[in-house]
Amino acid sequence: MAPTPTTYKRVVLSSRPSPTKLLDPAVFSLRHEPFPSPPGNGELLIKVLYLSLDPAMRSWINPSGSYMAPVPLGGTMRSFGLGVIISSDEGCKLKKGDRVQGFFGWTEYALSPEKAATLLAPPPPGAELLDYLGPLGPTGLTAYFGLTDIGQLKKGETLVVTGAAGATGSIVCQLGKLWGAKVFGIAGGTEKCQWLERECGVEMAFDYKTEGWREEFKRVAGRFDVLFDNVGGKMLDFLLTRMNKRARIAVCGGISDYNSRPKGLTNYLALINARARMEGFLIMDYAPRFAEGTRELARMLSRGELRRKFHVLKGVESAPEGLGMLFSGQNTGKLVVQVGEETERGKL
Amino acid sequence: MAPTPTTYKRVVLSSRPSPTKLLDPAVFSLRHEPFPSPPGNGELLIKVLYLSLDPAMRSWINPSGSYMAPVPLGGTMRSFGLGVIISSDEGCKLKKGDRVQGFFGWTEYALSPEKAATLLAPPPPGAELLDYLGPLGPTGLTAYFGLTDIGQLKKGETLVVTGAAGATGSIVCQLGKLWGAKVFGIAGGTEKCQWLERECGVEMAFDYKTEGWREEFKRVAGRFDVLFDNVGGKMLDFLLTRMNKRARIAVCGGISDYNSRPKGLTNYLALINARARMEGFLIMDYAPRFAEGTRELARMLSRGELRRKFHVLKGVESAPEGLGMLFSGQNTGKLVVQVGEETERGKL
Repeated sequence: MAPTPTTYKRVVLSSRPSPTKLLDPAVFSLRHEPFPSPPGNGELLIKVLYLSLDPAMRSWINPSGSYMAPVPLGGTMRSFGLGVIISSDEGCKLKKGDRVQGFFGWTEYALSPEKAATLLAPPPPGAELLDYLGPLGPTGLTAYFGLTDIGQLKKGETLVVTGAAGATGSIVCQLGKLWGAKVFGIAGGTEKCQWLERECGVEMAFDYKTEGWREEFKRVAGRFDVLFDNVGGKMLDFLLTRMNKRARIAVCGGISDYNSRPKGLTNYLALINARARMEGFLIMDYAPRFAEGTRELARMLSRGELRRKFHVLKGVESAPEGLGMLFSGQNTGKLVVQVGEETERGKL
Repeated sequence: MAPTPTTYKRVVLSSRPSPTKLLDPAVFSLRHEPFPSPPGNGELLIKVLYLSLDPAMRSWINPSGSYMAPVPLGGTMRSFGLGVIISSDEGCKLKKGDRVQGFFGWTEYALSPEKAATLLAPPPPGAELLDYLGPLGPTGLTAYFGLTDIGQLKKGETLVVTGAAGATGSIVCQLGKLWGAKVFGIAGGTEKCQWLERECGVEMAFDYKTEGWREEFKRVAGRFDVLFDNVGGKMLDFLLTRMNKRARIAVCGGISDYNSRPKGLTNYLALINARARMEGFLIMDYAPRFAEGTRELARMLSRGELRRKFHVLKGVESAPEGLGMLFSGQNTGKLVVQVGEETERGKL
């Protein structure tokens, strides 16, 4: 067993970024801290294994916050992650060696109240631990409930997905295909588009970085019944002109507008003629139905029906630059940071 | 009985307006025509009594049309109206003296297929003929179904209505109040705001022409559960920042954007944090439920529960200038044109 370290690293928010400027990684600082004291009443000491980097995290550091209170200055940057318990207060049900998920933040070790951690079952057949940050985690559940509950996708309909090669988008594409829709993706770059067409079941992927993609979209995809939108801004504004009657737009995110003053939607009146709907949602509202979603997604994984790609960065100190990669589209697949490793003995 | 006239007047669309410029009444021309020939097979000859002027008509003359094909150049301007039958083909069920409604257009007389006209019942107690262009017509039904089906207003919720002193808006305010909501209106000018507060049951009406109305809105109205929006543009963009969780926005119209390049909605991402919905609708989709809506609205009229104001212009030649009044907010109440009068004898 490795000796207990005497210090650990965490990354804190040291200044607040401008909500309308490209995220500067310098707003975060790396801190070396003395190793945490043993867990107190009802607490767990967790070794963090993986962090999830998600576009929505951008909004957690804006001064106004969003659906969550803003991360305080000097505080560990908030993030969802996976970890293993090193020790737990004796009253806790969770024990050393248990794998857990929760908002542990950008840190190598976290002291967490037991109720803020959720025990992870062993990955189902066909899955691995990391899938809890992909198809079996918030990413997959966002795809699942956004498409079923908000998009209300029906067999035979046309589904358009923006940010289609992203973590959520690529699952949406595949769910749409499995459920009998005609799926079109929009992504940036040839490589991403090829992956979508060859592996993710999309009819055709449009590269928004090429000139004339809108014309090609009109010609080939035509109009949609459901749009699962991760991008917003000008792309969404264009797509508002491509709705079938009674179209549904699931507003999952607007990554093109997260680092700038939003480009306005000028075509919103098209909602009237199309009798169409735009609806926002947050995955945390579906907590009571997570089991349903996870069961379906695990079934697909076990049948080998879901392709997924992880883009793994190493070390907690890589998180600040990593977060920025999401907004320039540099990542290919679900972006995560491997913070620590389980050792063979005692899972520590 | 008055002698049959030898000519009649109609107003045609003589050139197509720019969709992004203020409507110029000169795109319409008055024509003097020889009196129509007797109705042919399955036709009615209708004397038009009243025309309805509605913001949506602006979209009917744009080159691209909208939910209806564009009015052709040289054709009679399309409009909804009320009339009385002068003569009918012998196979028709509708007969001389029957009052009818339909899209008869900007004309003193219309030859119409019988199936394009709907017989009007005698106005219910508390109502008059003109109410078929107000609470008992498309205006009232738009308010009714927009608020119930799209807005899904519930007792105790906060309802905000834009264009609140307009034909539809003022009915929406009153329905909201009758159904137990806390209603706030937004309108232009002191007179309209006073009318809303004194007669239409709104808690408070905000005059968007006064400086600081947004701050007052934030302070007094706070946030809404349902927005019935007739205005769009910058007003809607502001209101997107004032949503309660699970707010519903019924997109009825966007009068501020009908004569210009639309001002974009920059705050659409607020739909995510609020888990809110924006949905467009068209009243014609509710035709199978018109009887339900009309029955409810007639009941309210008979109880004296619905205030309404008509702004009556005289003569079909006043329609082009009249349509423009809607966009500058010069009308007070439902704007109609009285085209003809029923004579005492034989209702002609």
